[in-house]
Amino acid sequence: MFDSAEIGHRIDRATYKAEVPALRAALLDAQYELLRRGTRAVVILINGVDGAGRSETVNTLNAWMDPRHIRTEAFGAMTDEDRRWPEMWRFWQVLPPKGRIGILFGSWYTDPILARVEGRDSRDHFAHRLERIRQFERMLTAEGVVLVKFWFHLSRQAAKARLKALASDPRTAWRIGPQERANLKRYDDFIDASDEALRKTSLGEAPWIVIEGSDEAYRHLTAGRHLLSVLRHAAAPASPVPPQGPLPASVIEAPGDDVTLLKAQDYGRRLTHERYERLLERWQGRLNGLSRDLRLRGRSLVVVFEGMDAAGKGSTIRRLTAAWDARFYRVVPVAAPNENERAQPYLWRFWRYIPPHGRAVIFDRSWYGRVLVERVEGFCAEADWMRAYGEINAYEEELTEAGVIIVKFWLAITPQEQLRRFREREATPHKQFKITPEDWRNRDKWPQYERAVQDMVDRTSTRVAPWHLVASDDKLWSRIEVLRTLCRRIEQALEQGIPAKRRL
Amino acid sequence: MFDSAEIGHRIDRATYKAEVPALRAALLDAQYELLRRGTRAVVILINGVDGAGRSETVNTLNAWMDPRHIRTEAFGAMTDEDRRWPEMWRFWQVLPPKGRIGILFGSWYTDPILARVEGRDSRDHFAHRLERIRQFERMLTAEGVVLVKFWFHLSRQAAKARLKALASDPRTAWRIGPQERANLKRYDDFIDASDEALRKTSLGEAPWIVIEGSDEAYRHLTAGRHLLSVLRHAAAPASPVPPQGPLPASVIEAPGDDVTLLKAQDYGRRLTHERYERLLERWQGRLNGLSRDLRLRGRSLVVVFEGMDAAGKGSTIRRLTAAWDARFYRVVPVAAPNENERAQPYLWRFWRYIPPHGRAVIFDRSWYGRVLVERVEGFCAEADWMRAYGEINAYEEELTEAGVIIVKFWLAITPQEQLRRFREREATPHKQFKITPEDWRNRDKWPQYERAVQDMVDRTSTRVAPWHLVASDDKLWSRIEVLRTLCRRIEQALEQGIPAKRRL
Repeated sequence: MFDSAEIGHRIDRATYKAEVPALRAALLDAQYELLRRGTRAVVILINGVDGAGRSETVNTLNAWMDPRHIRTEAFGAMTDEDRRWPEMWRFWQVLPPKGRIGILFGSWYTDPILARVEGRDSRDHFAHRLERIRQFERMLTAEGVVLVKFWFHLSRQAAKARLKALASDPRTAWRIGPQERANLKRYDDFIDASDEALRKTSLGEAPWIVIEGSDEAYRHLTAGRHLLSVLRHAAAPASPVPPQGPLPASVIEAPGDDVTLLKAQDYGRRLTHERYERLLERWQGRLNGLSRDLRLRGRSLVVVFEGMDAAGKGSTIRRLTAAWDARFYRVVPVAAPNENERAQPYLWRFWRYIPPHGRAVIFDRSWYGRVLVERVEGFCAEADWMRAYGEINAYEEELTEAGVIIVKFWLAITPQEQLRRFREREATPHKQFKITPEDWRNRDKWPQYERAVQDMVDRTSTRVAPWHLVASDDKLWSRIEVLRTLCRRIEQALEQGIPAKRRL
Repeated sequence: MFDSAEIGHRIDRATYKAEVPALRAALLDAQYELLRRGTRAVVILINGVDGAGRSETVNTLNAWMDPRHIRTEAFGAMTDEDRRWPEMWRFWQVLPPKGRIGILFGSWYTDPILARVEGRDSRDHFAHRLERIRQFERMLTAEGVVLVKFWFHLSRQAAKARLKALASDPRTAWRIGPQERANLKRYDDFIDASDEALRKTSLGEAPWIVIEGSDEAYRHLTAGRHLLSVLRHAAAPASPVPPQGPLPASVIEAPGDDVTLLKAQDYGRRLTHERYERLLERWQGRLNGLSRDLRLRGRSLVVVFEGMDAAGKGSTIRRLTAAWDARFYRVVPVAAPNENERAQPYLWRFWRYIPPHGRAVIFDRSWYGRVLVERVEGFCAEADWMRAYGEINAYEEELTEAGVIIVKFWLAITPQEQLRRFREREATPHKQFKITPEDWRNRDKWPQYERAVQDMVDRTSTRVAPWHLVASDDKLWSRIEVLRTLCRRIEQALEQGIPAKRRL
């Protein structure tokens, strides 16, 4: 969930200065319109990693809008006094009325995550508290409250570098106490617990917005622009339909910053044919051995391939299946749904192919079509693909708990490489069937697809089923990387046993 | 949740025979219309207690409609073979496409409930599976599947009597094996687990319909009429809004059966003044002692009074508070929400008064206004009060887990007694302020309120926070009954400690 918040987003000072005045004016307008209409309350949750600039962002938002109509409250871990009331009581006390904005610095996520990291709460109790939060947020949105859930993120490296910089400067060294050092030590545990919290509470009505925190200009501008889009949405005339939450597209992409997950890949890695052949043999052998591992008899394997047209999904899959006995696996190519499939919930046609224990299925495209092609082409309503992220996370978690090992690959190519391959296909008689006018049309929508991929990874790359983005401009390097990753993921899963098995 | 399915609903043979032909014709029409439209699938879940006639009802529904467009599947506890796939896989295989009806005899509830009763699953794992079901059903309804969740119920007594009758008749004795006898032994455990399942999965979009199973005519007619209303709803032109599930009102009340929970109370119980005074002193003393019980320092108390106008809520509350130190309790009279309150989610104004540990609050009317006056008077949309049952159950569960003891009273009076009290108020100068034109208007809606009370008790009388219906035509008897019940509930809660505390 944090992948795209670790790629070093940055906005230069000049762009920031040029952008801010218009943004501030627009935010103020939207705030007054919200107040005038009085049909919705807006609650902004500020959460994230220590040092990711949460406090500065709260101050900035208050400075950019009219603070007289904003109530800002800070919440930490629960005290003994807090425990005299039911957990959610303290949040109910500060809910803003319709027309107003509430900023919660620390929120109903803070204590559950800390309690989990500190070992105060069992795994099950943590899950129970997250479920309570989900019900609470569903109820709030049904009652007309618009939730904006910001998560400010720092990579481990960035968090460490920040601590070091602060500690070495006598003017700031006082900010670093034993608590801050302890938090850094627990960084991985904190991210694990946060990943679960975000994964399980990413509702269509109230999605998480993860923002990289290290660059102040990027952070403020991204949060501000996102908030603007939400406020405009919230101030629109009330309808009987509950608000579907903020629009994720376009608004998150701050001007002046065009780093995306896909652009951030290193496309330069290459393999010689000779080295490729040697590595291919090695990893196929290992993959073959794994398919016969006795431990796999109580598990099953689902491999998902997604990628732009001509990214090499088919040829990669063939290198993979070449390592296996035909009785072990099945390849499921996924095209547009047929009539029978359209008469069912969208996950139905994938559920059908879920293998029993001891078997594998490879999906050539998958349920992610919902948030890729169906979103970009407008084949389903925004509300539908927005709720799909949460549904897909729940689906993959359910599979995982039943012993399914899920490995998801995005084969990433550059637009230049795609163009080269398209032209090559057109020029090669036996490849011409692979290129259609639709491929060219899809290519025109590259930026929309890139945006959808970024959101998809942000919202569905979880500890349970992470995305593996593989730079695939060089097919040889890409295939080996896929084989290697697949072997490692299977080995890891077999070693760990079935995760999150709750049966006693 | 099962209260109103234990009062002996019954429909005579003649009424049944007169009613069935029209119902069958209407069901067939609705089924064909569903098929013709092809916009929604309907899934009927058949669950409940052994011997409550589930199997016969499945046969009857198939006989009443066109079975060629109905797929009926039976599901029991999971077998080892089932376990080779993720749990929900087997249900995905039998989902009907749009336009069709699926009947699941036994469903995704069967294994979780049995596993809990048989001790195969921990309390936490059970909760986890119910949560998965809730997500699954939410997704299905969002995808256009209409869920009809029937629960056929038998009281312990009725189940026992049935077993005895079957066993003593040589023609039916073969139907009673060791399994059936074992099930009866576990009746209470089964009801406990079922209560939790129904409570936690009673969604606005997919509510539970609990039907008393002992009388075949009542059972079939009630299920059939309910299904008819759902089919008509489902066959209506598709809208972007997901279906809000079956209409609960009126349709459940089968013609020929006018037994309701309120009518089934025994209003004849009376106390002499002498006896009343003696009992009052005794129970007030006990209640006073309880308020000073040291164990209550880590708990708090919420008492809810609801009832028709002039049911005696105020005077009962005074008898109760007379037993307590003024610092211990607070009485919160609840009227129509004011402007500030309307600017917040409806539970907000009640959350504010939730007491800290060691304190008590008495609500004179409560959050149940949502599903009583707001429903009957049309102050909120059907979708809103339909979702309120689940929200209220979650709310009360949350309070309970935080150590709050919730005791809910419905003071039940007959319409005749209400009329007598209204007239008495009009005739008594110092009581005239208590009677307004609105009281007379409410009285005209008695049947609608009676229906709303029945649904409220059916859906929110849970093991966590049961409703106590107290026949109150005699104020003296009613007050003592309230005091006695309150003392017992507090004692019970203090003995048991905080239930469902999941912290390790």
